[in-house]
Amino acid sequence: MKIVIIGGVAAGAKAAAKSKRMLPDSSVDIYTQDTHVSYSTCGLPYYIEGTFKDWQKLIVRPKSEFEKTGINVHLEHRVTKIIPENKMIEVLNLATKNLSTVEYDKLVIATGAVPVTRGFEEILNKKNVYTLRTLEDGVAIREKMISIQNITLIGGGYINIELMEAFVKNGKNVTLIERSPFIMPILDEDISLLVQTYIMEHSNNQVKILTEDSISEFLGDDNITGIITKKGIGYDTEMVVISIGVRPVIDIARDAGIELGITGAIRVNSRMETNIKDIYACGDCAEKVHIISNTPVWIPLGSTANKEGRTAAMNLCGEHKDFEGVLGSSVTRYLGLNISKCGLTEKEARKLGYDTVSTVVTKKDKAGYMPEVENITLKLIADMRSHRILGAQAIGCGDADKKIDSISVGLANNMEVKDLLDVDLTYAPPFSASVDILHSAARIIQSKLKN
Amino acid sequence: MKIVIIGGVAAGAKAAAKSKRMLPDSSVDIYTQDTHVSYSTCGLPYYIEGTFKDWQKLIVRPKSEFEKTGINVHLEHRVTKIIPENKMIEVLNLATKNLSTVEYDKLVIATGAVPVTRGFEEILNKKNVYTLRTLEDGVAIREKMISIQNITLIGGGYINIELMEAFVKNGKNVTLIERSPFIMPILDEDISLLVQTYIMEHSNNQVKILTEDSISEFLGDDNITGIITKKGIGYDTEMVVISIGVRPVIDIARDAGIELGITGAIRVNSRMETNIKDIYACGDCAEKVHIISNTPVWIPLGSTANKEGRTAAMNLCGEHKDFEGVLGSSVTRYLGLNISKCGLTEKEARKLGYDTVSTVVTKKDKAGYMPEVENITLKLIADMRSHRILGAQAIGCGDADKKIDSISVGLANNMEVKDLLDVDLTYAPPFSASVDILHSAARIIQSKLKN
Repeated sequence: MKIVIIGGVAAGAKAAAKSKRMLPDSSVDIYTQDTHVSYSTCGLPYYIEGTFKDWQKLIVRPKSEFEKTGINVHLEHRVTKIIPENKMIEVLNLATKNLSTVEYDKLVIATGAVPVTRGFEEILNKKNVYTLRTLEDGVAIREKMISIQNITLIGGGYINIELMEAFVKNGKNVTLIERSPFIMPILDEDISLLVQTYIMEHSNNQVKILTEDSISEFLGDDNITGIITKKGIGYDTEMVVISIGVRPVIDIARDAGIELGITGAIRVNSRMETNIKDIYACGDCAEKVHIISNTPVWIPLGSTANKEGRTAAMNLCGEHKDFEGVLGSSVTRYLGLNISKCGLTEKEARKLGYDTVSTVVTKKDKAGYMPEVENITLKLIADMRSHRILGAQAIGCGDADKKIDSISVGLANNMEVKDLLDVDLTYAPPFSASVDILHSAARIIQSKLKN
Repeated sequence: MKIVIIGGVAAGAKAAAKSKRMLPDSSVDIYTQDTHVSYSTCGLPYYIEGTFKDWQKLIVRPKSEFEKTGINVHLEHRVTKIIPENKMIEVLNLATKNLSTVEYDKLVIATGAVPVTRGFEEILNKKNVYTLRTLEDGVAIREKMISIQNITLIGGGYINIELMEAFVKNGKNVTLIERSPFIMPILDEDISLLVQTYIMEHSNNQVKILTEDSISEFLGDDNITGIITKKGIGYDTEMVVISIGVRPVIDIARDAGIELGITGAIRVNSRMETNIKDIYACGDCAEKVHIISNTPVWIPLGSTANKEGRTAAMNLCGEHKDFEGVLGSSVTRYLGLNISKCGLTEKEARKLGYDTVSTVVTKKDKAGYMPEVENITLKLIADMRSHRILGAQAIGCGDADKKIDSISVGLANNMEVKDLLDVDLTYAPPFSASVDILHSAARIIQSKLKN
């Protein structure tokens, strides 16, 4: 059996490794236009920060290790075409410019996602303008950052919040420009505002956040040297990072007649099968199902990519395996503030037609007399009709991620509010409060459900 | 309505506060032989350690605050008799020795638990022999500890592990004597051994653990000055703390005809009602139901006491509320090692007749390149027949408690192994690994279930 995998970061690397383990006699080939396989893009902001010095630490499994197990890794090989009728792909060797075809019995598309740069095309080739996706991007951003002082971040999502932390910790001044009224659109606005307040209070005057604003004019020639915003704010800058979102890489799939979903990503079933026989898609290029709403969503995350790569491999190797979907669980931090969420936000839930009820509770995460005690603010959202918990968001210097992981497991098991009321969580003074914030929030929601 | 509550630490205090909030016009009286109400016994080891200087921080809500809300707190009043036929209790004022009767419409028994001292009766009145339950015990143990060097702990359960941490951090030498072959009987033996190994490797030669041994002879007169064990080990000691277990305080309840369960604690239904009308029991004196096995258990914990106190109050105030039961979720630490569990241990499960399958996995808790990364070892136990997860134990310098809380919520929602396989947990390098230890363990169990 010839197994061919397009892309090798998370989903592709996992699909390759799992396939080879399951069918040692099959041939497994990874084709990627990238210079590396199997690396942690999520770790790039921490490399940029200087948390560790060697970017090679981000490589989960080097090419040589794949090859030791008999997996062929073709770096800097761009797949330019999929020809399903011949069960064949067309590959461009980026070094030699040589074009060749490769046959497959099973094909896995794991082409990932790339940064959206719409509206910024004219400045992309400036020397000090960056996006963050590959290892090379990370290395370049860190190198540039070291020698300068004033940085502009365009977009207020996860990646730029993590970059802002990195830059602030390195003593830089950061201006973040966000078109919408709130940063971190992945959160509800009430929680987003708390994050923004924290950022402004804890960044030692190194941070400016311009919301409901955008760029009117870039100054400079080869380098951007200044920015003027639509609201008329003008300032000097030495570097610009654009993180206004990502989009799935679906071009060759679409051109081959592979169906896309309504999110624009590749449509797959729970076995990661596309509409074309023997072609699978997984990771950031594939559409997912949201477990709460049972609707298609596109939430590209490394942890999901791993599971989907594994699912694709199991199914193509002949073992039935379903991947049920995602909850949008995620976490990040900004200078000690942990920011975490799972399930639907209230605004997402309302858009889908849920009759939501929610509460926001702030509470200590451990016994009040312990020195390690910190606060958490938790927003819990439930459905008035079914009493099901729909989602949660938690922020704070305390264990926000711990609370959200607990709720994630509940969401995956269709937890209703009453099931959270008295759930037996671990308690000891250095770890938790005897009345947990999950209990407190569930009780408030329960009383609202009764009225 | 006259609401009378016997006991005021956790369940009693909560029942009183909640009752008064729900029925402001009722009279609420707490009778306790203790010198304080509403304090955290779980925090005593950390006071003893010196984590904070003022033991009054352990008081969650002082008497004065209860009285401000109209709750009468009768300290140092021992309830000597319950007379259900007259709806009346008999109370001894410990200061005046005055005996009186008090009528009730609703009675809540929250008499808690006391240390077992069976086999040590003859040394209990020695000056340097202690048990740990009340604030006074904690203050006395800390005072004594400060001036001495060599301490003996009898019993290898939670409390003595926490005291050992406190003493070791204060530079003391500790000898722990445990009758059975393993410390921490709340864990399976394989995990317990890992804990013991950690203790021996990280205690700077200050700790001796003598398992499968017990005391043969105490030396000394007013003070214990030395110990000879059954195995013939003899050594000097300056202080002895006995923590060989606790037992529910049920004497006055039993004498009044209130039914006990097979665990020896007061039998209650899910509304905290005893067999006698208008008499409720909650907290450490009450029996609980284990949610996994649906069998009666007695697991006295402060977090449960809070929920049961609240449940009793709601029901006696006329609002129907069920408390479904416990999972035995608990957590502690020893010098950086977090020790946590939920559900049934494998030995408990086997005793109950489950056909168990289990795995022990060790894994990093965060991305390997992050400085805050630590290991966790997780034992996951499932039922071969139903594929239900039965319990888990996690230890390590990493976030063991976070993993166990996630599983606790799953257990409360009847999670099967397949539901844990791909559960969407939060991932970011400073918080977790992209393939979580919960996923790894679930996958191993899943493959065992298939064979």
